[in-house]
Amino acid sequence: MDELELEYELHPQLAADCIVLGDFPLSTLLLANDSNFPWFILVPRRAEVSELYHLSPKDQMQLMHESAFLSENLADIFGACKMNVASLGNMVPQLHLHHVVRFKTDPAWPGPMWGKLPAKPYTDQQVHDLRHKLEFLMDAEINFVPE
Amino acid sequence: MDELELEYELHPQLAADCIVLGDFPLSTLLLANDSNFPWFILVPRRAEVSELYHLSPKDQMQLMHESAFLSENLADIFGACKMNVASLGNMVPQLHLHHVVRFKTDPAWPGPMWGKLPAKPYTDQQVHDLRHKLEFLMDAEINFVPE
Repeated sequence: MDELELEYELHPQLAADCIVLGDFPLSTLLLANDSNFPWFILVPRRAEVSELYHLSPKDQMQLMHESAFLSENLADIFGACKMNVASLGNMVPQLHLHHVVRFKTDPAWPGPMWGKLPAKPYTDQQVHDLRHKLEFLMDAEINFVPE
Repeated sequence: MDELELEYELHPQLAADCIVLGDFPLSTLLLANDSNFPWFILVPRRAEVSELYHLSPKDQMQLMHESAFLSENLADIFGACKMNVASLGNMVPQLHLHHVVRFKTDPAWPGPMWGKLPAKPYTDQQVHDLRHKLEFLMDAEINFVPE
């Protein structure tokens, strides 16, 4: 474990707005607590990183690998019309990569969905069902460790 | 040159809305013709690709490399508060990766800027000046070939 991983802590705003689903080798997988959209976030466990290019080249490659794996599986599971993948971070400086499953029938289509609707928190049952739906991640060769 | 590169053509909507600045080894660099924001787009020259995970693993790594190089240089040149990097594509299906230089003083801060303001096209002089400003790309080790 290198120094930047040791000093890493999940930003309190992300901790407040999301549910931790588990860990990929580099990134923690969060579920945004907003049932308006299937919305997942990867947070590389590295301290003091706010831009993709702050990551080491090796970590950049690993993040791309985790992101592509996640996107492809989310698109399959949810039957996405389009995946929206974005590093914005204008409000929360800790590097985090959004993965939002978009549908032509969703309430923000075709615009971006950030800030469009008030967050609609999941029920415990919905979170339980989502964890089950995402079980594919648990035994995959990408070494996802569920929370 | 592989088959998917041979069959690639820039989507007509991107061609209409943007100015071609040149080519990285994988991606064409576009300037969005909207002077409200310093807004650049990378389009991998691969046919029939709409999601990042449709790219081969090798192309994914190359795109990450070109994107990190571009973001870091744009942030330096423009004095960014934050880079916003996103693959959305709800309107134009061809895979394209936005790189927007954001400032705390810009008219959409801290929200996303897509669709916030009517596009304000550049003058010829402004485009000329921007090409000059981006000259760093021309002789870099990343092999950028200006248009």
